[in-house]
Amino acid sequence: VKIKDIELKEENPAKELVRCFASTGFQASSLADAVELIAEMKRAKATIFFSFTANMVASGLRGVFAELCRKKFVDAVVTTAGSIDHDVIKSFLPYEVGAFDVDDVALHRKGINRIGNIFVPTAHFEFFEEKMRKWLKELYGKEKMVSPMELCDFIGSKLNEKNSFLYWCHKNKIPVFCPGIVDGAIGLQAHFFKQDHPNFGIDVTKDMRNIATLVLGAKKTAAIILGGGISKHYTIGSNLLRGGLDYAIYVSTAAEWDGSLSGARTREAKSWGKIKEKAREVNVFGDATILFPLIVAALKEEKVV
Amino acid sequence: VKIKDIELKEENPAKELVRCFASTGFQASSLADAVELIAEMKRAKATIFFSFTANMVASGLRGVFAELCRKKFVDAVVTTAGSIDHDVIKSFLPYEVGAFDVDDVALHRKGINRIGNIFVPTAHFEFFEEKMRKWLKELYGKEKMVSPMELCDFIGSKLNEKNSFLYWCHKNKIPVFCPGIVDGAIGLQAHFFKQDHPNFGIDVTKDMRNIATLVLGAKKTAAIILGGGISKHYTIGSNLLRGGLDYAIYVSTAAEWDGSLSGARTREAKSWGKIKEKAREVNVFGDATILFPLIVAALKEEKVV
Amino acid sequence: VKIKDIELKEENPAKELVRCFASTGFQASSLADAVELIAEMKRAKATIFFSFTANMVASGLRGVFAELCRKKFVDAVVTTAGSIDHDVIKSFLPYEVGAFDVDDVALHRKGINRIGNIFVPTAHFEFFEEKMRKWLKELYGKEKMVSPMELCDFIGSKLNEKNSFLYWCHKNKIPVFCPGIVDGAIGLQAHFFKQDHPNFGIDVTKDMRNIATLVLGAKKTAAIILGGGISKHYTIGSNLLRGGLDYAIYVSTAAEWDGSLSGARTREAKSWGKIKEKAREVNVFGDATILFPLIVAALKEEKVV
Amino acid sequence: VKIKDIELKEENPAKELVRCFASTGFQASSLADAVELIAEMKRAKATIFFSFTANMVASGLRGVFAELCRKKFVDAVVTTAGSIDHDVIKSFLPYEVGAFDVDDVALHRKGINRIGNIFVPTAHFEFFEEKMRKWLKELYGKEKMVSPMELCDFIGSKLNEKNSFLYWCHKNKIPVFCPGIVDGAIGLQAHFFKQDHPNFGIDVTKDMRNIATLVLGAKKTAAIILGGGISKHYTIGSNLLRGGLDYAIYVSTAAEWDGSLSGARTREAKSWGKIKEKAREVNVFGDATILFPLIVAALKEEKVV
Repeated sequence: VKIKDIELKEENPAKELVRCFASTGFQASSLADAVELIAEMKRAKATIFFSFTANMVASGLRGVFAELCRKKFVDAVVTTAGSIDHDVIKSFLPYEVGAFDVDDVALHRKGINRIGNIFVPTAHFEFFEEKMRKWLKELYGKEKMVSPMELCDFIGSKLNEKNSFLYWCHKNKIPVFCPGIVDGAIGLQAHFFKQDHPNFGIDVTKDMRNIATLVLGAKKTAAIILGGGISKHYTIGSNLLRGGLDYAIYVSTAAEWDGSLSGARTREAKSWGKIKEKAREVNVFGDATILFPLIVAALKEEKVV
Repeated sequence: VKIKDIELKEENPAKELVRCFASTGFQASSLADAVELIAEMKRAKATIFFSFTANMVASGLRGVFAELCRKKFVDAVVTTAGSIDHDVIKSFLPYEVGAFDVDDVALHRKGINRIGNIFVPTAHFEFFEEKMRKWLKELYGKEKMVSPMELCDFIGSKLNEKNSFLYWCHKNKIPVFCPGIVDGAIGLQAHFFKQDHPNFGIDVTKDMRNIATLVLGAKKTAAIILGGGISKHYTIGSNLLRGGLDYAIYVSTAAEWDGSLSGARTREAKSWGKIKEKAREVNVFGDATILFPLIVAALKEEKVV
Repeated sequence: VKIKDIELKEENPAKELVRCFASTGFQASSLADAVELIAEMKRAKATIFFSFTANMVASGLRGVFAELCRKKFVDAVVTTAGSIDHDVIKSFLPYEVGAFDVDDVALHRKGINRIGNIFVPTAHFEFFEEKMRKWLKELYGKEKMVSPMELCDFIGSKLNEKNSFLYWCHKNKIPVFCPGIVDGAIGLQAHFFKQDHPNFGIDVTKDMRNIATLVLGAKKTAAIILGGGISKHYTIGSNLLRGGLDYAIYVSTAAEWDGSLSGARTREAKSWGKIKEKAREVNVFGDATILFPLIVAALKEEKVV
Repeated sequence: VKIKDIELKEENPAKELVRCFASTGFQASSLADAVELIAEMKRAKATIFFSFTANMVASGLRGVFAELCRKKFVDAVVTTAGSIDHDVIKSFLPYEVGAFDVDDVALHRKGINRIGNIFVPTAHFEFFEEKMRKWLKELYGKEKMVSPMELCDFIGSKLNEKNSFLYWCHKNKIPVFCPGIVDGAIGLQAHFFKQDHPNFGIDVTKDMRNIATLVLGAKKTAAIILGGGISKHYTIGSNLLRGGLDYAIYVSTAAEWDGSLSGARTREAKSWGKIKEKAREVNVFGDATILFPLIVAALKEEKVV
C-alpha cells in the first residue's frame, strides 16, 4: 500500500477517516488495521472476548461498551472490580469532567475523588454502599459462596439503564468475568457484609469452569483488549487452554521495555501459546477514549457493529 | 460538564465524535478542548505558528499540512530538515506503508529505509540528490549565503503539487522556519555543493529577524505544535520576544519526567514567559497521525478551517 | 538545594551515587528522595506494605524482595498471581536472560515462553503443575475454602530457598495478599484441582479482614509500590479504611494521561483519601530492575535495611 | 546466561551492581550490555561520538560529561543550543533543585524558569546575555561568518571551569557539533548582535566538512546517544557517509510507535545504513540522570574511563 496524503472532505464520517488512516502510516495505519481485523473476526464468527479497565467505565466509553453488549457483538466481558463500581453508580448518578492538574488536597476536602480528569463525589460511593448492602443481602438469600460472574450477573439484573454494560450482559446472557473483584468498592462492601454473614464469600475459582467451557467450545476465539493489568492477562491466559486466540487486538499506552504484562505486545503472547502462531493481531498505541469510539463508529458505519 | 456516555450514531462525522469527546474524559476531552481552542485562536485573529516534525511529513499527515497552508489557516511553519526532504521527494515519488516489526538488515539489503512503519527506497534519496544539486546551483546564482527560510521558499517555488506544504507556503507567502536545516538529506546536499562552491552557505541567524518581526508585529500569537524537538522549542522560544504565546496546543507522546523539552507541558513554558500566564493552552497525548486529522476534520465541518 | 555537577569517584558505592543524585535533578533527584523517604518511614516505625508485579519476580529483583522479607523490613506483601508461579518455579529451576526482539513463533516452537527479555521453558510450568497438584491436595486436607493469604503461606511453608519471598514471608509471618490469585498458572491449577474436588475454592473476601486489621491497627502506614495494576490499587485501596497512607513511593513507567490507575500519581490518591493529605510521597519513573536495587543497596549501606 | 536473583552486598560499588544487572533481565540487563559495549568500543579504538540534549547539561550530568571530555574518552560531541547556554551559565552561577508539580505562573512572577524539576532564575540569562555580547564582539573581530563548531570552541576558550564540557572540548581539541545552534539563548544573542553587525552570521554548512572528515577518517565509529532530537539524528546521519556506525548505544525515554526519530530504535538506523548491519548496538530505556552516571561509574571502576 502506498502512503496517501490525507485529503479531508467537507464531511468526514468515521469510516472515511479510517479509510484515509489505512494509507497514512504510524498509529493511523494500526488503527485502520484494527477496524479491519474486528470485521474479519466477526465474519469468521469467532467468540469475542472483550476486556477493559475500570477507568474506561468511568469515562464516556461506557456507552460504547454498553452498545457492544446490547447488540451481542461480544461474547464475554473481562474486566476489573472498579468497572462494576462505576457501572452501578453511573446508572444512577453522574460523574464530572474535571482536570488532571488540580490541587488534590483541595479536592479531598471537598469530597471529590479524581480519576485522571474525571471527578466523582465521595457521596456517590456512599450511595453505592447502600445499594450493595441491600443487593448482597438478597443474593445471599439464594447463594452463600458466589462467583464473580454470578455476582456481576445479579447486579446486572438489578439495573435498568441503557448505558450499563452489566445490564446488557445480564439481559443478553453475556458472562462478565472479574477475577480481581475484591479490589474495588465492591470488594469493600463484600467485606463489610461478610462481617455479619461469615459464611458469605466470593470463590474466584468457580468461574474458571465457565471461561474454560467458553474457550474450549469455541470454533475460533478473538480478543479486543483495552488497557492492561489483570483483565488483559485473564483474557489471553484463559485462551491458553485452547492453544491460543485466533485474533487479538491490544489498545494500550504501556511500554514494553519493563517486561510488564501490561506493556507486552501481541507477539509476546505467541511465545506462550496465548495467541496462536498464525493468529492475526494488531497493537494500537494511544488512549482508548479516542481510539475506541473511532474504531466502533467506523464499524457501525460499515454495518459490522 | 457531566461525563456523558458516548452514543454513536449511524453516521459519525468528525465534529460529532469531537462533540461526544468533550464529555468523555481523559484524552478525548483534551482533544475536544484542542478543537475548541483552535477555533478560538482563529476567532481572535491570532498569528498562528504551526510546528511539526519530519516523520509526520513522511506520513499521510502531509496532506492535512498542505491544506492548512493552502487555505492560509496558519501564518508560519516551523519544522525540521527531514520535512523538506520528504516534502520534495513525495512531490514526485511515493512512500509505502510497511511495518514496525521487520528485519532491518534485510530491508537495508533491499535498499529500503524505514521510518517507523513507513518504507522509503534509497533510490528516492538519489532522486532528491539530483533535484537539489540543480536547484542549489540555480539558487546560488542569486544568493550565496542563504537563510533556511529563503531556501525553503525557493524549493517551494520549484514544486507544483497540491499536497506539498512547501509549495503552498511559497504560493501564499507563509514563511517556513527550519533552524536545524543542516540535519537531513538537504544538509548533506548543501555540504556536497559547498565543496565546489566554498562561498555558498546557510546562515541560520538570518531568519531570526524574520521570525522576530512576525512575533513582535502580531496582536496575538498562537501555536499548534505537533511533536517535540527543535521545531517545538524554536516556536515557543521565539515567542519569548513578545512575552509569550496567547494560545498553545501541544500534541505529543513524550514523557515529562526526564526534564526534556520534548516532554515539557505547556505550563512549563509559562514559567519561562514562552507562553503567557493567562494564555489558554491544551496538551493532547497520542500519535498525531490519528489525533490531528480528527481535529482538522472537525474544524472543517465547523467551517473553521 | 543547588544542582551539583556529579563528580564520580574511583569507587562509587550505591549510597554515594544516591547522594550525588539528590542534587542532580530529574529522576535522579526523585530516586534520592525515595531513598530518604524509606529511611523516614522506617524511623517512624510505619507498617510497610510492599507491592510488586509478577514480571519483577521473574527477574533478578526476586533476590532483593526476598532480602526485604528475610529481614522483616516490610510488614505485608501485595502482589499478583504470576509472582507465586515464578517464586515457586525459580526455587527449583532457572530462568534465562533472552532478548526483546526475537521471533516469538520460533520461541513457541521451541517451547520457550517470553517475559520481555526473560525466557522460561514451558517444561517449567509442567513442573509447577505437579508441585501444585500435590500441595493443593495436602492443603485441601486441612481446609476446603482457602484465602489467597492462606494459600501463599502454605506454599511458602513448602519452600526452602533463600531467594524466595514466599519462603521468608511464611518464616517471618508476613502476610502475602494476592487478590487476583486466580489469574495465573496457580489459578489454572486451582481450576484443575476443583474439577475433582468441587468443594475446594479460594474465597477472596476472606483476606479483607486480615488486611483491614493490619491497616486499622497500625500507628502509621507506608507503601512501597513497584509497578501498577491490582497489586498497586489493593495496597492503596485498603489504606482507605484508615484515612490513607502516611508515606507512599511509586516506582512506575506508566503514563498518567489515560486516566489509568497504573499511571496515576501519588497525588491522585490523596483526593480519594488513599494517601493522607499530609503524607510524604515520591514518584520515581523508570524500570524497577535498575531503580529498586539501587535504592535498596543505598539503604543497606546506610544501615537502614 | 541464567537469571540470577540479585544479592546485594554490604557495600555495592557501581561495577558490582552492573555485574548483578547482567543477569537480572529487563532494562537492568540492557544497562549491563551498554557498559560492556562501551568497553568494547574503547578496546576497538573506535572514534566515539557523544550526543546529549540541553536539559541534561542543566542537570548534574554535566559533571559526567565534563569528565569524559577531560579524559578524552570521547572524540566528538553533538548537542543542542541549550547545552551551550547551560554550560556557560553554570560555569558562573548555580541552578536549583525544584519540583515538577509547582505553580508555573507563580514561578514566572518570581522570575524563575523551570526545566522539569530544575529551577533557573531569569537573571542568569541576563548574565549570559552580557557575556555573549562581549564574546561575540571579540569573535567577530576574527571571523564574520562562523560555524557552530568554531563558536563552541571559542566559548570553551573563555571558560575556566572543571565541570564545563565546552572548556574541556576546547582544551582537548574535541569538536563540538551543534547543528541547531540558533535555537537557544545563544541564538537570540546572535540575532541581537547581528542587528548591529549585519555581516555576522553562523553558517551551519561549514561544519559538515569537519564532521565528514572525522567520520570518513575513522577506522571504526561509535556513538553514545543520550536522548533524541537533532543531536541524535545528526550523529547517526553523518555516519551514513561511511556506511554506518560500528557501535551504537541509545539511552532514551521516547516511544517508537509514533514513528519519530527520537523514539526510533537502533535497528531502524540499520535499514538506513546509519548503523552498520553487523554493528553491535544497545537500547536502554529510562532517564539518563540515573542510568548514565551508573554506566560511567562502572566503567571508571573497571578502569575503562
